[in-house]
Amino acid sequence: MISFSSFAATVEKDTTAEKGTVKYWDASHLTLVNRIQPDAPLFQRLDETKYSGVTPTVKRYFTYSTGIAIAFRTDSRNIYARWKTKAEKPGVNMTLIAQTGLDLYIRYNGRWVFAGVGIPGHTLTHQSPIVEHMDNSLKECLLYLPLFDKVENLEIGIDKDASLEASPVPFHHKIVVVGSSITHGASAARSGMAYPARLNRSLGFEFPNLGVSGQCKLDSFLAYIVADTEADAFVFDVFSNPSPAQIEERLEKFVAIIREKHPDTPLVFLQTEVRDSGMFNRKIAKYESDKRRAAEAGIRNLKRLGYKHLYFINPAMELGDDHLATVDGVHPSDLGFERILDKLEPQLVKILHKCKID
Amino acid sequence: MISFSSFAATVEKDTTAEKGTVKYWDASHLTLVNRIQPDAPLFQRLDETKYSGVTPTVKRYFTYSTGIAIAFRTDSRNIYARWKTKAEKPGVNMTLIAQTGLDLYIRYNGRWVFAGVGIPGHTLTHQSPIVEHMDNSLKECLLYLPLFDKVENLEIGIDKDASLEASPVPFHHKIVVVGSSITHGASAARSGMAYPARLNRSLGFEFPNLGVSGQCKLDSFLAYIVADTEADAFVFDVFSNPSPAQIEERLEKFVAIIREKHPDTPLVFLQTEVRDSGMFNRKIAKYESDKRRAAEAGIRNLKRLGYKHLYFINPAMELGDDHLATVDGVHPSDLGFERILDKLEPQLVKILHKCKID
Repeated sequence: MISFSSFAATVEKDTTAEKGTVKYWDASHLTLVNRIQPDAPLFQRLDETKYSGVTPTVKRYFTYSTGIAIAFRTDSRNIYARWKTKAEKPGVNMTLIAQTGLDLYIRYNGRWVFAGVGIPGHTLTHQSPIVEHMDNSLKECLLYLPLFDKVENLEIGIDKDASLEASPVPFHHKIVVVGSSITHGASAARSGMAYPARLNRSLGFEFPNLGVSGQCKLDSFLAYIVADTEADAFVFDVFSNPSPAQIEERLEKFVAIIREKHPDTPLVFLQTEVRDSGMFNRKIAKYESDKRRAAEAGIRNLKRLGYKHLYFINPAMELGDDHLATVDGVHPSDLGFERILDKLEPQLVKILHKCKID
Repeated sequence: MISFSSFAATVEKDTTAEKGTVKYWDASHLTLVNRIQPDAPLFQRLDETKYSGVTPTVKRYFTYSTGIAIAFRTDSRNIYARWKTKAEKPGVNMTLIAQTGLDLYIRYNGRWVFAGVGIPGHTLTHQSPIVEHMDNSLKECLLYLPLFDKVENLEIGIDKDASLEASPVPFHHKIVVVGSSITHGASAARSGMAYPARLNRSLGFEFPNLGVSGQCKLDSFLAYIVADTEADAFVFDVFSNPSPAQIEERLEKFVAIIREKHPDTPLVFLQTEVRDSGMFNRKIAKYESDKRRAAEAGIRNLKRLGYKHLYFINPAMELGDDHLATVDGVHPSDLGFERILDKLEPQLVKILHKCKID
């Protein structure tokens, strides 16, 4: 075992892959899970050319692999990856591993257990061991793709004499999550730690991620996309990005567009978080409080209008009161997501159960 | 309030600083806390030229501002920063905010409460609001410097008519923590979330950070530096980086060098974590288990040799059993550090109390 320094901290690396004992396979024939729509280009969340009125930033986000995972089986003792991404400047509040890296889980005693990450370089092509020196039992694998990058291609490397095959989709039901950067995954430490991905593994449902960082402002184009998407339920983190006035003006139309196509599909709205950044900043505190009040009024209005199968979890993103659970006062760290899910997941499960989604 | 996209996720930003209402003050006259030695160059942990035998990587680490915070008082409604760092390639398993950014806490009802981060650019000079729109009461501030970068200079920006003054050191006792990347702060989301910084605030003691990522291998040069450093106690995360053989060969000499100068100072050794990366990788599992066993044998040997005031916390870094608490299988996220401290802090407090450090 040798190690190389990736500057910030040493990352474990082995040399097996360089010894010519590994064979790489194109991952495009493996099973894709957590896709929003079936006609999206490979490794993309959505076809960015399909809808009109989509802003350029959101179009770019649609080309990302956010939330998508690849399911496969292998008896290889070692798993590697080579992948190519599109140029993106590293974010300031995320790890490059979350943004551009890979995150592998293996089914073990009925649970999806973290196995290793594919470490990206500061380049467009990446090559990394993910996990090595395993036993050679047949393993069911789930590999999450980058949260904030477009994957141009992906190859899985396994031992030359090992097998690699597509798994049947290991999940049933499909809950599409629409939301802000918090849903998009900022700032999970690795892609499988974004909260939709955690729900994906813990509940055993597909949880496609339609988080569009900073851009989820109840725009009609997003409602038309949701209307056009098949799902057993939709979860909406749509009160984090819009202004109080935008919530007031847009929510009713947003829901009306969706209900036109999905008259009975459960719609679960999440109240936005109380931002740590508003602890001392009175302007942020007021603005965020106004947003939450506008969300509450908007949901009351929808119920008054007679919408059924519409749920509101409030609060939905509880970060605790010690102000230690975000990267930057806004975006939850894995500690923040853990605290959010501790409270949110049981409430969501209860709603889904009531809707016979279990 | 406008916002700008830092690619990964939107960061809150205001425009007050650009309106010419802010005055910047050189921070070098403010109070520095968590310094390892008093003669280190400004904003550096140690004078990198002072000791012989130090490897180039560790010398570079000594120039970093890791663990250091600036204490000041101000009645400004807004706090900004301009700072200059040395070129470092962003790490793959850390946020740029943790690596190169600033992290501010304000004393509120007797507790240090997170107030905001200074967002770095992908540049060598940075300018960022930290917190804005506060009331104008006099506030006691604690600003942590970057974890993995050298700060060349730093200016604090406040309202033109506001006051800024050095605080008296707001901590008593000094516990120096020597360790690996885990101590260095990989992979806290912001610099104040590294575990020594969290202990600094929660216990009210200075906790200088002598974590040297990947390089803390019980080398004699590190023992001589510890011997040369004044502290009320030392905490050692020295079993994460060395091999089992290095632990066996080096621990006794390491402690002997320190004890020569510090015959009675409490020495608290931390067992290393059980790495998530060893869940499926049997080679890592064996290697790490051998390290932990070597650490246990080494501590038994030290006790047999008659060393007093020597403590061993084992386990000391408990990440839980769900494999969700690291960025990459090795480095704890803030969730990992939270879990570590939940168990570690009470044990450490008990030891320090026994040593009359409280």
